[in-house]
Amino acid sequence: MSVMDRLSSRRAQINKEIEIALAVGENETLRSAMKHYPLAGGKRLRPLFAYLVADAISGSGELTVPFGAGLELIHNFTLVHDDIMDHADMRRGIPSVHKKFDVPTAIMAGDALFALAFEEICKLKVEDVLLRFILNDTAVAVREVAEGQQMDMEFSKRDDVQVNEYLTMVSKKTARLYFAACRIGAIIARGSIEQIRAMGECGQMMGVGFQIWDDVLDLEGDEEKTGKPVGGDIREGKRTLMIVHALSTLKGEEKKDLLSVLGNQKASRRMIQDAMDILHSCGAVSYAKNFALEYIREARERASVLPDSEAKELMLELMDYLVRREE
Amino acid sequence: MSVMDRLSSRRAQINKEIEIALAVGENETLRSAMKHYPLAGGKRLRPLFAYLVADAISGSGELTVPFGAGLELIHNFTLVHDDIMDHADMRRGIPSVHKKFDVPTAIMAGDALFALAFEEICKLKVEDVLLRFILNDTAVAVREVAEGQQMDMEFSKRDDVQVNEYLTMVSKKTARLYFAACRIGAIIARGSIEQIRAMGECGQMMGVGFQIWDDVLDLEGDEEKTGKPVGGDIREGKRTLMIVHALSTLKGEEKKDLLSVLGNQKASRRMIQDAMDILHSCGAVSYAKNFALEYIREARERASVLPDSEAKELMLELMDYLVRREE
Repeated sequence: MSVMDRLSSRRAQINKEIEIALAVGENETLRSAMKHYPLAGGKRLRPLFAYLVADAISGSGELTVPFGAGLELIHNFTLVHDDIMDHADMRRGIPSVHKKFDVPTAIMAGDALFALAFEEICKLKVEDVLLRFILNDTAVAVREVAEGQQMDMEFSKRDDVQVNEYLTMVSKKTARLYFAACRIGAIIARGSIEQIRAMGECGQMMGVGFQIWDDVLDLEGDEEKTGKPVGGDIREGKRTLMIVHALSTLKGEEKKDLLSVLGNQKASRRMIQDAMDILHSCGAVSYAKNFALEYIREARERASVLPDSEAKELMLELMDYLVRREE
Repeated sequence: MSVMDRLSSRRAQINKEIEIALAVGENETLRSAMKHYPLAGGKRLRPLFAYLVADAISGSGELTVPFGAGLELIHNFTLVHDDIMDHADMRRGIPSVHKKFDVPTAIMAGDALFALAFEEICKLKVEDVLLRFILNDTAVAVREVAEGQQMDMEFSKRDDVQVNEYLTMVSKKTARLYFAACRIGAIIARGSIEQIRAMGECGQMMGVGFQIWDDVLDLEGDEEKTGKPVGGDIREGKRTLMIVHALSTLKGEEKKDLLSVLGNQKASRRMIQDAMDILHSCGAVSYAKNFALEYIREARERASVLPDSEAKELMLELMDYLVRREE
């Protein structure tokens, strides 16, 4: 049985919580726009990690569900706003929110999902003093996600982005919510200071690995599985780790060819294919894959602070899945 | 001395809190975009009401400052996103955030301001159990503001919006934050149940009055004072109370003329002037003004639950100011 199958009952609890949360509101259009992504699937990775961390520490995974659901709503809100900024027409195989509705509705739906996430987290059955701490931490995380997204946009206008800059950017844009998931999962479970710190690092590292793998999937993935057109990042001019690596190693014609396609919204499929070939041949794709694997290896090591249990095993497997998945 | 002058030391405290809050973050562009509106002035009406309510109840206005600052950040975040949706190029006499920066940066800056608002509210020096309640209430308020904005957009495509629908919309879009300001101000001050309820109603009513007056200012205001072009709402096709009233009373040519200008982004200044003349001559402007005055009168009545004090006097004066102001 695959790890995703073995997590199905936990995922069902999370899904139920999300569905109930999304039943609120009096405006039909806004409600539909809010539901569009969260109820169109999604793997619930962040809530699952929070759940598993708490299960591994004290069998208290169920307690984390409102927090995990809130985190998932936050993740979805960032996707809605991201897709507007990235001119992405498809997501999870369906039209993006601003395509199905319109840009103003998508902006509103994102804002409302963000607000709803905080309502959801307020439901946590933890001591009030802990809740204050968790809400503050979550708000900081969201602000840093926005900072990472801003960096991501700015990088797309530069040809000299360095690997460490890329890492700072993805640490905020993507890894920040994994950090919050694992760290706050440990806090809710009343883990030790050592466990809380290690789980924060674990989440941070798996988040970086996850994002790098996501960038690889944008190139190598199957459109049917990812639900997004191949090479979208190249058209948007995203400075993924592969691009960062390629721009620092390539010279002459090949570099010029790659730069001419990067950020070219009108690039043909042929041009995208050529750029992809360059990324493969210069070793950028395997460089990125190894990078992602290394981060996941490091993340897995951090899990040694957890007592042995089925939840810990599942967590280790789920980390491996992050860099094996095809969607 | 005007009421705004008499509130200057309270306003200075609020401004200081907002400035400190906005000093965070590591991305220069995002930080500038976040500061653009909050540090370009603004009357701080919502924080001032929270402050005055708490002062009137138990002299605890200072305690409300992080909450008021958070509310002001939320208000500013909604302005940033609103201006994108309304194609508004100017605000407070300066270019709107998406004009000065770009749409993606404005979306991000709004999101980050929202997150920062929650961080700010977490600083409140109140019991943790109260903070959970306040944060949840604030999140609900923001979600309802989004709902109101969505209704506002949908109304602009309809010619049969009724007065009660308009009132539901502004109750959410605008009055919801005034409701939160006054009600939570009373909660922070440890007011009685009666005071908390009455202050919620008071805020709700003044918020409706405020919005109607704002719509009147869009027509009658001095561009130098409002910082926005006259008649912007007509160009955007907003269903203000004046438009709702006019569309329900006008017939024949005049109605046709008004409808031809409403929502016409390319309407000339001359056309806007004609529409304004129609709104005056059919009595819509004086209808709206009376409506606003009536709501403020009702809001003032609710303040009778407050003990007599200088703060109460200032609050009553500030409510009058809402429907006397020219900016």
